[in-house]
Amino acid sequence: MRIAVDAMGGDHAPHEIVAGALESARQVSFEILLVGDSAQIEPLLPKRGRPDNLAIHHASQVITMDDAPVMAIRRKRDSSLVVAAMLVKEGKADALVSMGNTGAVGVTAKLLWGGLPYVDRPAIATVLPTYTGRCVLLDSGATVDCSPRQLLDFALMGQIYAAQVLEIPNPRVGLLNIGEEATKGNSVTKEAYQLLQSQLKEEFIGNVEGKTFYEGVADVVVCDGFVGNIFLKTSEGVAEMVLKVVKEELTRNAFNKLPLALLKPAFGRIKRRLDYREWGGAPLLGVDGVCIIGHGRSDRYAVRQAIAVAAQAVANRLNPTLRHALTLLHQEKEG
Amino acid sequence: MRIAVDAMGGDHAPHEIVAGALESARQVSFEILLVGDSAQIEPLLPKRGRPDNLAIHHASQVITMDDAPVMAIRRKRDSSLVVAAMLVKEGKADALVSMGNTGAVGVTAKLLWGGLPYVDRPAIATVLPTYTGRCVLLDSGATVDCSPRQLLDFALMGQIYAAQVLEIPNPRVGLLNIGEEATKGNSVTKEAYQLLQSQLKEEFIGNVEGKTFYEGVADVVVCDGFVGNIFLKTSEGVAEMVLKVVKEELTRNAFNKLPLALLKPAFGRIKRRLDYREWGGAPLLGVDGVCIIGHGRSDRYAVRQAIAVAAQAVANRLNPTLRHALTLLHQEKEG
Repeated sequence: MRIAVDAMGGDHAPHEIVAGALESARQVSFEILLVGDSAQIEPLLPKRGRPDNLAIHHASQVITMDDAPVMAIRRKRDSSLVVAAMLVKEGKADALVSMGNTGAVGVTAKLLWGGLPYVDRPAIATVLPTYTGRCVLLDSGATVDCSPRQLLDFALMGQIYAAQVLEIPNPRVGLLNIGEEATKGNSVTKEAYQLLQSQLKEEFIGNVEGKTFYEGVADVVVCDGFVGNIFLKTSEGVAEMVLKVVKEELTRNAFNKLPLALLKPAFGRIKRRLDYREWGGAPLLGVDGVCIIGHGRSDRYAVRQAIAVAAQAVANRLNPTLRHALTLLHQEKEG
Repeated sequence: MRIAVDAMGGDHAPHEIVAGALESARQVSFEILLVGDSAQIEPLLPKRGRPDNLAIHHASQVITMDDAPVMAIRRKRDSSLVVAAMLVKEGKADALVSMGNTGAVGVTAKLLWGGLPYVDRPAIATVLPTYTGRCVLLDSGATVDCSPRQLLDFALMGQIYAAQVLEIPNPRVGLLNIGEEATKGNSVTKEAYQLLQSQLKEEFIGNVEGKTFYEGVADVVVCDGFVGNIFLKTSEGVAEMVLKVVKEELTRNAFNKLPLALLKPAFGRIKRRLDYREWGGAPLLGVDGVCIIGHGRSDRYAVRQAIAVAAQAVANRLNPTLRHALTLLHQEKEG
C-alpha cells in the first residue's frame, strides 16, 4: 500500500505535513509519498536515518486557499494536489491525503477520478464526538449548493460508511435543520425532509438541530457543504472559547491555583474527548478513489492521524464497498 | 409604556411565561399585558397581591411549533400572537414579546405592521458573547432564504443597532462564510461579499468563520436565517456538551471531589459568561414596531430578560432610530 500526501496543502505546509509524514513512516509498514516542491521538502527531512518507506515525488506548483477550485486545477497541472491525484488515478498510489483548499481537493478528485455510480456530487464525511458517542456529518464542505436529491445521496453514502466502516448497526439518519417539525427549514430542507422520509422510511429520524446533534440522537446527519462547514467550524470555535473561559475562571485568584494543578489530568482527558485532531482526516465520499481531507490547521499530529485514516480506508476497501452497496441499493429500488 | 407578552408561545408556555411576567411586573413600573387563554393564565397568577401593572388580555387560539407561519396567521386570527401584534398595531401596546414559533412571529409582525423603508425582509439580531466582548449576529431565524441584497440590508440594520443601541462605535461588519478568502462560499455569499465590499468599504472586514467569530473579530456578522439559526443552536449544543464533559471529568474520582467544591464559584461565573439566558430576547429588525423574540426553551428568568430587552428598545426609540438612520443612509447614496 502506498499513500500520496499533498505536502504543500494546509496552513502549516510544508513543515508540519512533512513532519507528520516522517513520524508516520517510522511507525507503519506501508509507503508514504510526499508530493510537492522537493527543494522545500528535502531540507525538512533528516539526512541520515530517513525511513525506507518515505519518498518525495516532485511537483513544482502549489494551489493556495485563494485559488478558485476549477481554475486552479486547469492552470496548475503540476501542483502537488493535481500530481498526487494523478498518481492515484494511474494506480501508483492507493489514496490521496490533503490538508489544502477543500474545494480544490473535491473538484480535483471528482474531475480526475470520476464519481461513484448513482452519486451526483461528492461529500466529506466527518466523524464528530457527541455526548453519547459519535456521529457522521456530511457534507462538511465539498458541495456548497445542494439539491434535496443530492442530500439523499449523502444520506445513503453516510449510512453505508457508518454501517460498513464504522460498524454502527442500523445507522439512524437525521437532517440538519432549524426545527424538529417537518414544516421547518429553507426551501431545500423542506423538500429534502419529504424525500428522505419516503426513501429511508423508519431509518430517517427526522430533523436534527445543533443542540440535539450533540446529544447523539442520530448516527448520520446530512446537510449541504456550506452549512456543514459552518457547523464544524462553529463547533470548534465554541469549544475553544468555552475551554478558555473555564481555564480563566478557574485561575482567577491565587486560592484556586492549587486545585487547578491537581485537576490537570482531568483537563488532559477533556481535551482528548473534544479535540478534533483525535478524529483525523475525513473521507471524501462519492468519488472513485480514496481521498482523505484533513483540517487546514492540521499540525504533525493531525497529519499522522489523517494518514492512518487513509490507510484504514484502503485496508477496509472503502471505495469498492461503497460502489457495491450503492449499486445493490439502486438495483433493488429499480427491480 | 405597555409590553404585550404572548403567553402561549414557547416550550414552557404558559407556565414559565406567566411566572416571568409576574416577576417582571413586581420589579418594574411599566405595564405588562399577558395575551392568551385566560382560563389557563388566570390559575397561574396569585389570587392576592397581584401587581397592578399586570393584566390579562384574552385570546382563544394558540399557534404551535408545527404550524406553517403564513397559514397559521390566516387561520388563527384569535391566537395569542396575532392578538398581541394587533394590540401593538392599534397603539394599545408599545412592544411585542414572544417565545413562540419564530417563523410565525416574523411573518405576523411583517404582515400586520409592515416593513421599515428600504428593507426587503426582517432579521433577528442576536447579541452573542465572544471571547473578547460581544457580537450581533443577524439573521438568526426570520428569513431563511436570502438574496445578497437582503444580506446588505441586514448589515446596515446591524450597524445601526450596534452603534446606536449597543453603543459600539464604528461597528465592523463581517460575512459568515466557510473561508476567509473572497472566492469561498456558496453562490449567495460569493455575490454578497462583492456587494458588501462595494457598499460598506472599509467597514466591511470580509468573511468571518465560526472560529474567528468567537475570537471577536467583528461587531456585526450577517448570514441568512437558516445558517444563523444553525449557528446559534450549534453554539448552544457545543457549549452545553463541553461543560458537561468538563464537569464529568472533574468529578471522575473521589480525589477530585474536594477541589471541585472549592471551584464552585468559578463555575457560577463560567455559566454567567456563557449562558444564553443572560442575553435575553433578540429584536426583530426591519418591521415597523418593536418585536422581541425569545428562545423557545425560555424559562421564567429568560422571559424576564426578554421583557427587559423590549422595555429598553422602546425607551431607546429603537424603531424610530432605525427608520431615521435607514432613510438618511439611502438618501445620501441616492443624492
